[in-house]
Amino acid sequence: MIFSDPASVAVVGASDDPAKWGHWLARGALTGRDRRAVHLVNRSGGSVLSHPTVRSLSELSEAPELVVLAVPAAHVPAVVDEALAVGVRGFVGIPSGIDDGVIGRIRESGARLLGPNCLGVFDAATSLHLAWGHFQPGSLGVVSQSGQVGLEIAGLAAASGIGVSRFVSVGNQADVTAAEALLDLVSHDLTTVVGVYLESFGPGIVAAMSELCAAGKPVVLLTVGSSAAAQEAALSHTGALTSSLDVVDAACRRVGAVRVTTPAALVDLAAVLCSGVPRGRRVGIISDSGGQGAIAADLACAAGLLVPAFPGMSNPMDLAGAGEQDLENYARAVSAFVRGGEVDTVVLSGYFGSYGEDTPSLESAEVAVASRICALAREAGVSVVVHSMRVESAAVRALRAGGVPVQHTIERAVAALGHATRLGATSHGVVLHDATTAVPFEPGYLAARELLSFVDFPRAHAVTSAAEVKATTLNGPYALKAGWLAHKSEHGGVRLNLTDPATAFEEMEARLGPGTYVLEEMDTREHTVELIVGAKRDHSFGPVILVGAGGVHAELFKDTAIELAPVTPATARDMLARLVSAPLLSGWRGAEPVDVAALAQVIAKVSETLVARPDLAEIELNPVRVGPGGVLAVDALVIPSDDAVNDTAGRHVA
Amino acid sequence: MIFSDPASVAVVGASDDPAKWGHWLARGALTGRDRRAVHLVNRSGGSVLSHPTVRSLSELSEAPELVVLAVPAAHVPAVVDEALAVGVRGFVGIPSGIDDGVIGRIRESGARLLGPNCLGVFDAATSLHLAWGHFQPGSLGVVSQSGQVGLEIAGLAAASGIGVSRFVSVGNQADVTAAEALLDLVSHDLTTVVGVYLESFGPGIVAAMSELCAAGKPVVLLTVGSSAAAQEAALSHTGALTSSLDVVDAACRRVGAVRVTTPAALVDLAAVLCSGVPRGRRVGIISDSGGQGAIAADLACAAGLLVPAFPGMSNPMDLAGAGEQDLENYARAVSAFVRGGEVDTVVLSGYFGSYGEDTPSLESAEVAVASRICALAREAGVSVVVHSMRVESAAVRALRAGGVPVQHTIERAVAALGHATRLGATSHGVVLHDATTAVPFEPGYLAARELLSFVDFPRAHAVTSAAEVKATTLNGPYALKAGWLAHKSEHGGVRLNLTDPATAFEEMEARLGPGTYVLEEMDTREHTVELIVGAKRDHSFGPVILVGAGGVHAELFKDTAIELAPVTPATARDMLARLVSAPLLSGWRGAEPVDVAALAQVIAKVSETLVARPDLAEIELNPVRVGPGGVLAVDALVIPSDDAVNDTAGRHVA
Repeated sequence: MIFSDPASVAVVGASDDPAKWGHWLARGALTGRDRRAVHLVNRSGGSVLSHPTVRSLSELSEAPELVVLAVPAAHVPAVVDEALAVGVRGFVGIPSGIDDGVIGRIRESGARLLGPNCLGVFDAATSLHLAWGHFQPGSLGVVSQSGQVGLEIAGLAAASGIGVSRFVSVGNQADVTAAEALLDLVSHDLTTVVGVYLESFGPGIVAAMSELCAAGKPVVLLTVGSSAAAQEAALSHTGALTSSLDVVDAACRRVGAVRVTTPAALVDLAAVLCSGVPRGRRVGIISDSGGQGAIAADLACAAGLLVPAFPGMSNPMDLAGAGEQDLENYARAVSAFVRGGEVDTVVLSGYFGSYGEDTPSLESAEVAVASRICALAREAGVSVVVHSMRVESAAVRALRAGGVPVQHTIERAVAALGHATRLGATSHGVVLHDATTAVPFEPGYLAARELLSFVDFPRAHAVTSAAEVKATTLNGPYALKAGWLAHKSEHGGVRLNLTDPATAFEEMEARLGPGTYVLEEMDTREHTVELIVGAKRDHSFGPVILVGAGGVHAELFKDTAIELAPVTPATARDMLARLVSAPLLSGWRGAEPVDVAALAQVIAKVSETLVARPDLAEIELNPVRVGPGGVLAVDALVIPSDDAVNDTAGRHVA
Repeated sequence: MIFSDPASVAVVGASDDPAKWGHWLARGALTGRDRRAVHLVNRSGGSVLSHPTVRSLSELSEAPELVVLAVPAAHVPAVVDEALAVGVRGFVGIPSGIDDGVIGRIRESGARLLGPNCLGVFDAATSLHLAWGHFQPGSLGVVSQSGQVGLEIAGLAAASGIGVSRFVSVGNQADVTAAEALLDLVSHDLTTVVGVYLESFGPGIVAAMSELCAAGKPVVLLTVGSSAAAQEAALSHTGALTSSLDVVDAACRRVGAVRVTTPAALVDLAAVLCSGVPRGRRVGIISDSGGQGAIAADLACAAGLLVPAFPGMSNPMDLAGAGEQDLENYARAVSAFVRGGEVDTVVLSGYFGSYGEDTPSLESAEVAVASRICALAREAGVSVVVHSMRVESAAVRALRAGGVPVQHTIERAVAALGHATRLGATSHGVVLHDATTAVPFEPGYLAARELLSFVDFPRAHAVTSAAEVKATTLNGPYALKAGWLAHKSEHGGVRLNLTDPATAFEEMEARLGPGTYVLEEMDTREHTVELIVGAKRDHSFGPVILVGAGGVHAELFKDTAIELAPVTPATARDMLARLVSAPLLSGWRGAEPVDVAALAQVIAKVSETLVARPDLAEIELNPVRVGPGGVLAVDALVIPSDDAVNDTAGRHVA
């Protein structure tokens, strides 16, 4: 592979000046010269890093397979043209501002380009170090749209002891994409966990993350966009339109990945996952200080972990002086938690890791206990994370070497476990057959009811005159709707709770003009819960399905759950269970539980419908009212894919 | 002062064995021997740490002023009795398990005891080091109920460069309390910020924090209790019943302190506050990587900071290659933000701090820029925090020396600023005159209405027969309430929306028996918002006032605001503004705003009433309905201080 193990490389722009990129890239390239030919190119000739250089690529007897472009952008076109002429197959484009013409010529020639505007590539398996920065070989595969964020991740991975197996700074992705770089890691043996920083999600990203996760390599995704400021920054930085993080999270749940918000959170989580995914959310907390145990318990609960109480064993467990009296008590405490199978994860917080530093005579005993803790964690398949008041010590190194992550602050230790347990919460999609050929959707409320006929609506019929309204056989109270309006409420096209619908019709027709109005029975059931069910298309991730609590408070509290569409009814039930207002569904204050199964079916069907109908942009049932006796959709909106919805398009004057 | 600058100290239990407490305490004590006499006491005699010892305190020619008890608890009584006999005035009690008799004898003699079960005391101003652990002299005063949490704070303070001015491990507070230790810091010149870890809040804590804050020494409070597990841990650790953290936060707002959840958060915030409290929440973000800037912006918004956009200047500001081209651009970027007065705080995130390490020729230039940034921050009175990818470097040290905190992870940098800006959100109380002598409260709904007559209730009168109900002059629809019941709804003692109240009365009387029922008009106003207003007593902090959104969703979403009572109407308005559902009050979707001023008056009055009436345990108006035309309390409950409320006490049969 040209970007993972090239037979030969040349660094164009190699320099002795440590302030120049060409210095770092040449120095890195030379570390691999036992494995491959390394050529340094410098316009002035002479030697660089005590290594001979050539003045140009054409001076080389044989074309290098991969060329690192470490020259100013202005010099790039001449170098690339020369390289292509001699048969170079790959480029690492460091500078920004490489013009599109050059990129086009590379692609036309069948060669590949990493970047431009990237920090390079590192591969611990092949001694390939064509990147700025220091890398400690290890097991975390890193793919980053931002070179420096990638470098920060690599630095934190070195500090945490997990190191980097492969690092790919994809830069502007003019040719090689992040999705390709991720797919390369599926078969990269050194890589056991993948960390990726992305500001936008091109085609193939979800599939690549899915393949990695399926191959047993968990993916930790770092992205931005929770704030307007970050959305704009990403737009100006990489021209990327960020997706709603709710949708990104839905994509992560679908493939089995987890999103985090900082480089440290990514690395801390990766360090946990290097030893496996926790089986569940139950955590046992051990500390030699009651205060530290209580702090850890508060953090654990806030991170979504459970701190169960056990008969005869306190949790958090306070060793108090027992750890000091006999260091082996630390291992005994871990053993007590993991042996019983009562917990899925363990946090050890406090002084452990400091004994040997403060009292050198205790060092070997402390290291032995550290190794024992690692063995216990491995044997029991329990994720153990240690918070130590000491940054570095022999015991800390022993823990890390044995696969037990050590953090210097308790918040990092607990947050990593909390994130790790989210990997279990995978959503399940369904594979749909090809979209059935459908007649184009005819806008309007009645057509929406027909399209969504899998859900019950109140009885209704079209009316075009007050006389038709008067002659209705429907039962009051009534709703009257201007059926052709997409946004009926905003245009005064909805009246509810009518006992005299004919008068209401005359009033509405006088305002909105003639058209096909809909007269509808009101849902008068008691003890129902109002929700919103909607499906729309995300620009990066495609169809998504949303369910949310209805009503004014729910809107204020933003109580919604989102998944990639389509979803199964089982995933739809999971979505409902995630709502803060979920208790309203399951028998609030002694009320009868509502028909959640029927509601889940409706959610699944709405999601399938949008997937099966590429001609539709959006489907919304708002509100849906669910009671013990079933579901009734009280209003519906279907928006065709054509962005500009014409509010008169469906007005059929009778 | 005996615990801050004793004229002489003796360490009883001094030892050469570094695994023993007596070793650390002796070693620490000896560091102060230029300032005071230091005596080491060891039962076996000989020398310890190359220092002569005596076998017992009575061998000394003069009584030491302060004695450190670093012997097993079993030996303590004899040592204390001997010490008291020779005239020792103070004790630092290290071991746990010192019995109450000994403590009693110390107190009776007029001597003082720090601890027992404590880690000791350190004072940088007087070279007093009578504690386990390492301390770097600095400006953070630490008072801790948990010795080890205090030690962790001290270690983090050393790493962050702010150091510790004074450290007091108060342990079990058998004599010297945390409140006393805090008050000592008011006049302690080296101390500029105070960090305190408490699991319970004894008398005087709020007053001590208040004095410190008033003296310009901000207090950062670390406590536990958000989780049930931590509440139980604190209970078993120090026998402390934790207060609701909402109440603790209310106490912090009242005195001008801030609560955090971890030792690192405490120290990071203290590091910011060493250079002053930020003026406001606006942050300017500078990075040399678009990705890092966007990550910082997301975190800043999540931490409650504002990332305002400025004409002609992006925020986050991405230096991209400009920082690398000319390091001075970092200082120029800081200058651009702080000079205009457009921001209150600045975060610089990324590679800065690494240049000199990666490229030694850049070190002096980078240090110069670091100093320039410190000067800019100082001159403009803007809080600047740096996130550097490098843990340590000359530039990092220069920044810290100049008062600019440096963090290795962006989350710590941003979190500290977020916490710091909360210091501005002080609530305001009122000083009430002595409680007016009042007739004892007579339980029941009518009495509650009378007591709370500052708020309007619907028109109502007492009824004891169906005939009286039929003769009513009130207007329907009606509510009928069994007035003597404290928990009317739960006992079926409330019927609403009645058009035939006499029948309802007969039904209710048949169930609940004869008594004083209340017939009341219903509030039929439209466009009202329902809230809860309540006041009760916290076991540690006294009267508190709560306001919350009403209704089922609000209960699910826990949308409440709490302050210490009494509050001014202005603070009551702040409480309302903090509610997530606040937009409902100010004209939701074009509706008329409700009478927030009247509501604030009611909240203030409820808070004053509970403060003025020590005979009352709790007051609740639930719900209060507020519309554009004013406030109506639709139900009220007043509970006398006697815990056992007798649900029949107020039943006056006519």
